[in-house]
Amino acid sequence: MREKVASLAKRRGFLWPSYELYGGVAGFYDWGPNGAALKRAVVEQWLRLFVIEEGMLELDSSLISPREVFEASGHLAEFSDLLIDCLKCGNSFRADHLAEGLHPNPDSLEAAQLEKIIKEAGVPCPECGGPLGSVRPFNLMFQTHVGPGTGREGFLRPETAQGIFVNFPQLFRLAREHLPFGVAQVGRAFRNEISPRQGVIRLREFNMAEAEVFFHPREREWTGEMGRYEDTELKLVPREGAERTCTLGDALETGLMHNRAVAYFVALTARFLTLVGIDPARLRFRQHLQTEMAHYASDCWDAEVLTSYGWVELVGVADRGDYDLRQHQERAGTDLTVFVQYPEPKELEVERLTPIHRALGPMFKGEAKPVAEALKASDSTAIKPDGSAKVVITDAEGHKKMVKVPKECFKLERVKERMTGERILPHVVEPSFGIDRIVWTVLEHAYTERKAEDGEVMTVLRLPPVVAPITAAVLPLVNKDGIEELAMRIDSELKSEGIRTAFDSGGSIGRRYARMDEAGVPFSVTVDYQSKEDQSVTIRWRDTQDQVRVPITHLAASLRELAGTD
Amino acid sequence: MREKVASLAKRRGFLWPSYELYGGVAGFYDWGPNGAALKRAVVEQWLRLFVIEEGMLELDSSLISPREVFEASGHLAEFSDLLIDCLKCGNSFRADHLAEGLHPNPDSLEAAQLEKIIKEAGVPCPECGGPLGSVRPFNLMFQTHVGPGTGREGFLRPETAQGIFVNFPQLFRLAREHLPFGVAQVGRAFRNEISPRQGVIRLREFNMAEAEVFFHPREREWTGEMGRYEDTELKLVPREGAERTCTLGDALETGLMHNRAVAYFVALTARFLTLVGIDPARLRFRQHLQTEMAHYASDCWDAEVLTSYGWVELVGVADRGDYDLRQHQERAGTDLTVFVQYPEPKELEVERLTPIHRALGPMFKGEAKPVAEALKASDSTAIKPDGSAKVVITDAEGHKKMVKVPKECFKLERVKERMTGERILPHVVEPSFGIDRIVWTVLEHAYTERKAEDGEVMTVLRLPPVVAPITAAVLPLVNKDGIEELAMRIDSELKSEGIRTAFDSGGSIGRRYARMDEAGVPFSVTVDYQSKEDQSVTIRWRDTQDQVRVPITHLAASLRELAGTD
Repeated sequence: MREKVASLAKRRGFLWPSYELYGGVAGFYDWGPNGAALKRAVVEQWLRLFVIEEGMLELDSSLISPREVFEASGHLAEFSDLLIDCLKCGNSFRADHLAEGLHPNPDSLEAAQLEKIIKEAGVPCPECGGPLGSVRPFNLMFQTHVGPGTGREGFLRPETAQGIFVNFPQLFRLAREHLPFGVAQVGRAFRNEISPRQGVIRLREFNMAEAEVFFHPREREWTGEMGRYEDTELKLVPREGAERTCTLGDALETGLMHNRAVAYFVALTARFLTLVGIDPARLRFRQHLQTEMAHYASDCWDAEVLTSYGWVELVGVADRGDYDLRQHQERAGTDLTVFVQYPEPKELEVERLTPIHRALGPMFKGEAKPVAEALKASDSTAIKPDGSAKVVITDAEGHKKMVKVPKECFKLERVKERMTGERILPHVVEPSFGIDRIVWTVLEHAYTERKAEDGEVMTVLRLPPVVAPITAAVLPLVNKDGIEELAMRIDSELKSEGIRTAFDSGGSIGRRYARMDEAGVPFSVTVDYQSKEDQSVTIRWRDTQDQVRVPITHLAASLRELAGTD
Repeated sequence: MREKVASLAKRRGFLWPSYELYGGVAGFYDWGPNGAALKRAVVEQWLRLFVIEEGMLELDSSLISPREVFEASGHLAEFSDLLIDCLKCGNSFRADHLAEGLHPNPDSLEAAQLEKIIKEAGVPCPECGGPLGSVRPFNLMFQTHVGPGTGREGFLRPETAQGIFVNFPQLFRLAREHLPFGVAQVGRAFRNEISPRQGVIRLREFNMAEAEVFFHPREREWTGEMGRYEDTELKLVPREGAERTCTLGDALETGLMHNRAVAYFVALTARFLTLVGIDPARLRFRQHLQTEMAHYASDCWDAEVLTSYGWVELVGVADRGDYDLRQHQERAGTDLTVFVQYPEPKELEVERLTPIHRALGPMFKGEAKPVAEALKASDSTAIKPDGSAKVVITDAEGHKKMVKVPKECFKLERVKERMTGERILPHVVEPSFGIDRIVWTVLEHAYTERKAEDGEVMTVLRLPPVVAPITAAVLPLVNKDGIEELAMRIDSELKSEGIRTAFDSGGSIGRRYARMDEAGVPFSVTVDYQSKEDQSVTIRWRDTQDQVRVPITHLAASLRELAGTD
């Protein structure tokens, strides 16, 4: 199956390994004409759901980021795989790959544990049989330098998400300072795999679509109407308990899913994947085990699909909490909290930090006044374990910065206050889509075979019309009596209406239908002798081979309606 | 003007400098919600013209490329700027920038000349006033490493074009082995500028749209109908002679433009730029001087527009000849020539290489037979200056490779042959578009001001509806009597039809119109009391403030028709 799809993908210009002219580079694929169009259409459907329908803001941020971003995000410290080198040939391997079969879940082990297992089993180098060295972490970000000399360190982003977090102040303002709001981003991301395998499933350069949805920490409820998806059937594999199929409504009611925002995006994900051609019967949502979650996540459900590679993760819907904003707030020294008004003002007894001016003055000099103001506006949450307080002030140049205030400079007092609202750091729920994997799976799930009358086996690629690279083939029945000219005119009119067509006048009409079926073209428009008489053509539907006759004047509109792109 | 547009761009979420949270990184910009949508729409129009209408193949190839690609393309040797360091503070500068005012065209000078001029004028470091060092070239490609250890050297592509050239064999096959054919690619490219300035005009990370069009070297005529653009008026600045405005037809007839393929794409470029909102009165096409052409080009016309930065190059239409394919053919040792049939077979006297088997056998052993066959199929062009011949053979594993055959292994003979065609290396014409610059210029050219009745000056961003980020605002006249609910229902129906809308119920209707005018929203749909009675709404056109009333049932279709997106 995999070989058939890969062969079709290359033959029909969907995708193929990059740089074959130079012997190839593992982990890179190029998208050919049909693949680029299919990928674009899948992304367009995603944007239609997330940006247009759900009303999220779109962002297109830089791929190269400075070091600070990934110091804050934790990627510099955490985004690594364990590597082992051959001491003889110098090749490097993923240590967990070499421990496969030696442990039920080598992916979950630490360096020392993996090294012990590999040593004890006497695993040799898979390339040359030589002895292996020790296990060490290898950071998976591609590094570069910005500007001349050693310049400023830069990294190619491993996810699009950080571009959204570092732009949070701008984006919150553009969302009119209301929670919740979502920001969507589509684009390239990079992961310098040690030894990529599994074709397009694990690439060093790939395409993602991510949404970061910002919530009030106590109100994880998206603005979308949950009722719309109440009856959506989902196959769920919870962290504890058995796999089951139930509606989203049931999953929420029984507490199987308790995070309502995560649940909403799980349902939206199911709708999206089905829309672009993933077989719902081969789709399940699996909750991450505590041990397998990324360093920033507190809960995560993966959309997994059954492919020729087994169950593959296509989408992760993760609760990132306030991890990222908090990290950037610390690293950048900029207050990223937002003010949220209460529905009604509250009378609250609060702990306030009262400045002790005789201590503050000598210590902070010209900044004593803003520090005192900041202390008065803080509560006990500003106090750190060592008794000091961290507050944010605005310095003389108008820049915000964080200041550490020793405990002798203030005292903690309980006061009654009328509060109109509070400052909070938003929490984030993130649906994150691997576009290349999704498109590959769409190809696998669309791949079918049909036996022709003469017994020949023909490939039919049942891509949903809404994502098919070519919407319609235009086929003159014969190449004489003005039929071909009429077909060419029709073809160029459809093109100028923005409809993607393929003109094909070579070979028997049966062979041409077969070629179009294999390329996933949903509709074939045939121009025949009757077309000259009454200005009509037939439209053939790939999946049933049914035909209808329509007037040429209605052809573009009919195709748009049939394709669902009107 | 520039400040007004930059301020509007940031305020309304079009674009802003990246990484402000961390103090910024020069040469990087992020596209916000309105900007991402505007850029996407501009790209969509480009694809519609180049891929759908002109029938080019689309490609989406990898951003990271191995060293071999840029060894072949010449970028490793040639793609550099001249740099000068301060010996005191260590900052680096573009040497030609420091020579501005000291020479009419410092950009055209060699390192030694620039150094002389700078030294003689005693130019100090612009940062600290310290003394400057010597001038040296700095390669503008971002470098990285693929895989662990020192890995394999990789570079971020400086243009999308090389991805097309290295895939030429695949793409030629997908074009059904016919010339001419075109391949289009849209995506990120990178240029590690020494000291970027001029905002979005010179970025380190940017977006390009490029088409590489492959021709028979003696037939530079694209398949598109030239007649369509015969009357297109162009302002031309030829290499020799004065600037003039004439039609494309005149330019061709008078020999002002002699390369017909370049001429065709110049006209198509003018159509595209005008379509997305560039003012044709501020557009000209300038032919490159011999000294300023890129290392691969033999002729080039730039589309230049007048902006607040002066005349800026947005598009280059270059004749790259067979430079790139020839370089890759040499570097990869793979024959990239294609067979082109003559209209009719020809009887030709040709020089053929006759193998001398007694010399060939001992030297090539098992490969003597394929080498002999390859010699017989070669003509005198295979002979190198040293008298040896280079031929391509297929080895035992089916790989093609180039073989050097010493002169004692063959003799050159004149024979008469009936030829059905010939092998040629295609030539390339390349229209190359800088998308970020184009979008910025669209913003500048769309920026206008209107005086309100009370004398207040309002900004109106006259973006063409076909690229406007938001197609329609939905505005309830009042927020009571069910008007707001009706407006919300209309808004969500338009969204689910895929129309980009903005709902706004805050403030007077006049203020809301003004907000939408500033954001470039072409149509405002107002829901009023009459809407409840007869299910109709008004549509207001941003540029004239005219209003029409339409039934709600026809609203989506009317908006699509007005926006030209139906």
